[in-house]
Amino acid sequence: MGSLGKSDPNLDDEFNPLDPEEFRKQAYQTIDFIADYYKNIDSYPVLSQVEPGYLRARLPESAPYRSEPFETILKDVNRDIIPGMTHWLSPNFFAYFPATVSTAAFLGEMMCTAFNSVGFNWLAAPASTELELVVMDWLAQLLQLPKSFMHSGTGGGVLQGTTSEAILCTLVAARDRVLETIGDEKIAKLVVYGSDQTHSTLAKACKVAGILPRNTRLIPTTKHENFSLSSAQLRSAIEADVANGLVPIYLCGTVGTTSSNAVDPLDQLADVASDFGMWFHVDAAYAGSACICPEFRHFLNGVERANSLSLSPHKWLLTYLDCCCLWLKEPASIIKVLSTDPEYLKNKPSELNSVVDYKDWQIGFGRRFRALRLWFVLRSYGVAKLQIHIRSDVEMAKMFEEYVRSDPRFEIVVPREFALVCFRLTAIHNSDSLELLNPKLLNWVNTSGRMYMTHTVIGGTYILRFAVGSTLTMEGHVSAAWHLIKEGADKLLRENN
Amino acid sequence: MGSLGKSDPNLDDEFNPLDPEEFRKQAYQTIDFIADYYKNIDSYPVLSQVEPGYLRARLPESAPYRSEPFETILKDVNRDIIPGMTHWLSPNFFAYFPATVSTAAFLGEMMCTAFNSVGFNWLAAPASTELELVVMDWLAQLLQLPKSFMHSGTGGGVLQGTTSEAILCTLVAARDRVLETIGDEKIAKLVVYGSDQTHSTLAKACKVAGILPRNTRLIPTTKHENFSLSSAQLRSAIEADVANGLVPIYLCGTVGTTSSNAVDPLDQLADVASDFGMWFHVDAAYAGSACICPEFRHFLNGVERANSLSLSPHKWLLTYLDCCCLWLKEPASIIKVLSTDPEYLKNKPSELNSVVDYKDWQIGFGRRFRALRLWFVLRSYGVAKLQIHIRSDVEMAKMFEEYVRSDPRFEIVVPREFALVCFRLTAIHNSDSLELLNPKLLNWVNTSGRMYMTHTVIGGTYILRFAVGSTLTMEGHVSAAWHLIKEGADKLLRENN
Repeated sequence: MGSLGKSDPNLDDEFNPLDPEEFRKQAYQTIDFIADYYKNIDSYPVLSQVEPGYLRARLPESAPYRSEPFETILKDVNRDIIPGMTHWLSPNFFAYFPATVSTAAFLGEMMCTAFNSVGFNWLAAPASTELELVVMDWLAQLLQLPKSFMHSGTGGGVLQGTTSEAILCTLVAARDRVLETIGDEKIAKLVVYGSDQTHSTLAKACKVAGILPRNTRLIPTTKHENFSLSSAQLRSAIEADVANGLVPIYLCGTVGTTSSNAVDPLDQLADVASDFGMWFHVDAAYAGSACICPEFRHFLNGVERANSLSLSPHKWLLTYLDCCCLWLKEPASIIKVLSTDPEYLKNKPSELNSVVDYKDWQIGFGRRFRALRLWFVLRSYGVAKLQIHIRSDVEMAKMFEEYVRSDPRFEIVVPREFALVCFRLTAIHNSDSLELLNPKLLNWVNTSGRMYMTHTVIGGTYILRFAVGSTLTMEGHVSAAWHLIKEGADKLLRENN
Repeated sequence: MGSLGKSDPNLDDEFNPLDPEEFRKQAYQTIDFIADYYKNIDSYPVLSQVEPGYLRARLPESAPYRSEPFETILKDVNRDIIPGMTHWLSPNFFAYFPATVSTAAFLGEMMCTAFNSVGFNWLAAPASTELELVVMDWLAQLLQLPKSFMHSGTGGGVLQGTTSEAILCTLVAARDRVLETIGDEKIAKLVVYGSDQTHSTLAKACKVAGILPRNTRLIPTTKHENFSLSSAQLRSAIEADVANGLVPIYLCGTVGTTSSNAVDPLDQLADVASDFGMWFHVDAAYAGSACICPEFRHFLNGVERANSLSLSPHKWLLTYLDCCCLWLKEPASIIKVLSTDPEYLKNKPSELNSVVDYKDWQIGFGRRFRALRLWFVLRSYGVAKLQIHIRSDVEMAKMFEEYVRSDPRFEIVVPREFALVCFRLTAIHNSDSLELLNPKLLNWVNTSGRMYMTHTVIGGTYILRFAVGSTLTMEGHVSAAWHLIKEGADKLLRENN
């Protein structure tokens, strides 16, 4: 900003919002704050103990008229913000899925922020676009994806914010390629398939894309099949829909469902999708990252027959939020729906079709220099250390699984495939039902502030989910968590006796 | 990560992806790198001079197996990334709209990254949710929005990534509230309205939401009305559609269009929207920020009658990407479409309906601690300095406008309202038409690397857009840019003689 436009003579003359030396000084202080936060993170209650509305009561009702010193704001982060945090990076965080991080990703993210390039098309941010082409191919190689998913082959990858966007983009492509044939008034005939374990973002994406909720088919799964999607049941459902004049367009298979890490049989699903000409998307948001290790790669077998694959390194590949990879065999199919060509963005490289304009691969227009973080992570750690990281988490989950198995009051509810252990307390000493006992146990451990885990219900059974893998978690945290869970169980069972 | 899972005895024993001391050290180095980048930013060509494909040729074909030192990566950013950057933060960047930044926002963003909380619901990130409630109300107050848009009133605000998402979320709400009445098979009857100057993301959102492209009505604008949307023409178009059995559902008005900063007459549009029961959305992505100054606030008059308003502080309120504010009068209408309630996220505060779960206010599930950046900016600078910042940019644009007016070879094509000047070279000395001369001039200044501006075509006229406001731009940069433009004009006109 310039020096014109001052209207209040009482204000400081100087306002340089990006003075390099002030930037350097305050950024150092912030780095110290963050490094100390990481150092002391296990001293905070993992699950925040505040009540709804706590913050409004503490903050002023309006923004200040005059500037406040940086030190005051930093103090307020400590006083007002930290107590209201649920500390996702705590080593005692075993809830949902871990959101893993690393120094390398933090540095990459700082760079991304610093450049603040807006990569809607190639020209506006060539390095941003091209680095994304490169790292998407690198990661595709690590996952042993076929060339048909790579920019260096016939397909290509793009970084989305989250799985929701990846699914929405592919769904509208699937929708429009069918409507083009059958006529665009027939949108109410289109049907989308997943299982009752598919992430609920599929149903949400359907609603956004104008697929009728009654045409979103979530096939029931069973414990007998470990809650994976049965291709036989899927086929029956599709046949019934087709007989009713409906048109199947999209199938979502999952590698590592949210509730229990079920793995859908990709090869069999690909058969069904192919028989009915459906778009086949594979959602491997969490578990896909494990497939950079050869011993887990088989879980992705069949993906080579899918139209698209999404995987979120912000879950298990140390990248911070938000970072979701989407690979496509036919990028043209989503570009067809998502491209725009306003005059004010016209430029030679785009007109010559010699470049990728990523605005046409996503819902939004603007986009940050997303690839930097992944590039920093892949280079800083190399494939070897990333594999070690995955294996270490799985080993810790195995350790926890052994603890559970060693205590006859507990049971493992579904087989563990990755680093999520699904278990429950089964010992009952009086009338208190299991359905009450497990939620009580969960509540007891979480309100202790010493760890945080979450629950789910599958096949009618309430289960506890212990998801290992927060970046700072070590074996000691897993043992301590187990001891706390046992302590809670002792207490509850004693009370019930 | 733990110490288990090592398979290669040749690798380092130690792998701590988030060692606080390594974090501190490398983050300091990165801060130095960034501060130096800002210091020297005007030494780089603004528009990148690389050719498509430049980066793939420089980088390895696959990710390294072993880790690489941080210093090597930093060196490669300098060698391989910087030359491929179009420097959005250069003080000589006058293209598109500026993407403004500040030290405060950078610090807020570092904090946001550091916490890495995933705020899909209140419980998972109470501070993140509650701070967003607070700052959205603060900013609503600054803009003098009515209580009906505030959390402390009957509405509320949410931070989206970009305008595209804001429009998509409101559009599906508008769509479904109509379909609920007329029957959900009638989606092919729904019509959406904007002008030919409305951002192309409206048409894109329509495609995503299943509105037929032939039912997206972009009313032509004229120079006579400064390219604003004519409510009379709009009304005629709607009447014709209704007569044809179609159903109007959504109207997008713009305050500060992308091409020329046209301002649609909100009050008149509100009349039309109200007469036909349409959702009325106001897109003030760029110019809305100016309305924190009393002298610009009148451009928002009528917004109190809209259903929703979006505004992107990442354009003109110093926040870095991505930060788009969306205010709604009836949040329930978007929650109805976008909410999901999977078992694994069920929790007491949500069940008691005592909290906001922001996952139900957006397309995706996961979300970062978005409000921190805006909070840091509002507090660090206060309203006073933010107003100075807006006024300074407008004054610099006025200065540039005067330069243009003082040279009879140029003309101002549309009246300037904010900090965008739309002009063109009109002097013609031989057969070379204006339509060729202006693109040539643009190309000449941009390939010089000394500044970057962009063009548009409105009302059939090719114009040059000079958008003032990059954070580091001072009066000297504006004069230098004008001298360069004049130098280019001299040269081209000489050649044509």
